[in-house]
Amino acid sequence: MHSRTVFFVSDGTGITAETFGNAILAQFEMKPRHVRLPFIDTVDKAHQAVRQINHTGEVEGKKPVVFTTLVNMEVLKVIQEGCKGMLLDMFGTFVHPLEEELGIKSHHRVGRFSDVSRSKEYTDRIEAINFSLAHDDGQSNRDLAGADVILVGVSRSGKTPTSLYLAMQCGLKAANYPLIPEDFERRQLPPALVPFRSKIFGLTISPDRLAEIRAERRPNSRYASIENCRMEVSEAEAMMRRAGIRWLSTTTKSIEEIATTILQEIRPEKLVY
Amino acid sequence: MHSRTVFFVSDGTGITAETFGNAILAQFEMKPRHVRLPFIDTVDKAHQAVRQINHTGEVEGKKPVVFTTLVNMEVLKVIQEGCKGMLLDMFGTFVHPLEEELGIKSHHRVGRFSDVSRSKEYTDRIEAINFSLAHDDGQSNRDLAGADVILVGVSRSGKTPTSLYLAMQCGLKAANYPLIPEDFERRQLPPALVPFRSKIFGLTISPDRLAEIRAERRPNSRYASIENCRMEVSEAEAMMRRAGIRWLSTTTKSIEEIATTILQEIRPEKLVY
Repeated sequence: MHSRTVFFVSDGTGITAETFGNAILAQFEMKPRHVRLPFIDTVDKAHQAVRQINHTGEVEGKKPVVFTTLVNMEVLKVIQEGCKGMLLDMFGTFVHPLEEELGIKSHHRVGRFSDVSRSKEYTDRIEAINFSLAHDDGQSNRDLAGADVILVGVSRSGKTPTSLYLAMQCGLKAANYPLIPEDFERRQLPPALVPFRSKIFGLTISPDRLAEIRAERRPNSRYASIENCRMEVSEAEAMMRRAGIRWLSTTTKSIEEIATTILQEIRPEKLVY
Repeated sequence: MHSRTVFFVSDGTGITAETFGNAILAQFEMKPRHVRLPFIDTVDKAHQAVRQINHTGEVEGKKPVVFTTLVNMEVLKVIQEGCKGMLLDMFGTFVHPLEEELGIKSHHRVGRFSDVSRSKEYTDRIEAINFSLAHDDGQSNRDLAGADVILVGVSRSGKTPTSLYLAMQCGLKAANYPLIPEDFERRQLPPALVPFRSKIFGLTISPDRLAEIRAERRPNSRYASIENCRMEVSEAEAMMRRAGIRWLSTTTKSIEEIATTILQEIRPEKLVY
């Protein structure tokens, strides 16, 4: 049971407030209730938010924690003056010292995620998602030259979620390609990939974990058997070693950690800015 | 050209530091160079980071801006003592006041994204991604009952990126289903969807924008012609109105804004916590 509520108040989506607030809250042994209040972009909505926050505080008998990323000063003022929660003003805290250091005024523009839909960056991101979908699981060899990164590994080693993450969050065209028994017999990388060695990154996984994951999909299959998983992983790792491909084990890693490590290793030109 | 560098220093992936730092920087009219320094989890790596930051400052003749989300106090101390940049300690700033209010000590655990790979939440997220891929573009009617949300709309109205975002970032099983000329002729929702009206959400888009997007894929096609786009959009909107489906226009919205609005409207049970 939760015993305290945390609010994330934003004039935009509230994603920044919640991402950051969650990281802070992860430092504490507690399970508060989360309420995101997005699009609080008028004084009226601010008053409504204040009522909701104060009512919650009264019911729970504990000060709600309120993370805000409000940039509209009028809206922020309503919250500052009316809210009886513990207010953590994430923008105000850092924007003012930065104004001093940079010698420029902030422009109080609302929302990183608004008005972006026609920007080049945004179009590139959508294109990257489409590319990654079209090049999921070796579906297509077309335009691999256009890929920013090509992931390889045995089936269920984490290639698909990682590719989609790289496309969605970093705007990278991430293809992925399975390593399958025929490749192991030939003892060579799939021929379509050979010209692109510098942007290939391998994912591996412990055979035990792989067997577990595969068994959820196809219980009692040869595909999911520990013997077969051991063989595939060992062949795939040997192949990556021979081909001089960088790789990592996904066994205990989150998508975010895998993606971050890949970016550090591959350093796609697109992201050097 | 950039004239100042911003560093994001973290003992984890640095994603939180960069997400939040970017939101702050978006308040300023400037294009700094971004350098993410992830996995700074030892005193040695901290010293290396300090050298890199200070060297950059000397070369540029301007204090680098340094966002940190370090929780390891030893590492943070090295940065605090050695770094000549402008240090914005995002955790320290908020964690200490929270400790007071909550009456509990923070445990300085590194990284929201580490050690998660075997958690239930993480497994659910991977499962949601697989579900959304399998139910992209009406590929499958199987287990629509298991979907948390079903997006409908004409081809290229933004369904696929939004579904993948909802799966990846919110762990929601998001199916999507195209509305096509046969549906317009029958003047009814695709029959497979009828039982699930309460979790359907519609996406629409301005015909001009739709024609632009489609023309990138299939230039000079009937599919991309403005007449056809006008007809499809108007039929789709009429159908959603008749069926009593909630919908929004994606024309000027980012994936994040679309997803946030859908969550507010649909309020999937899974996310009430």
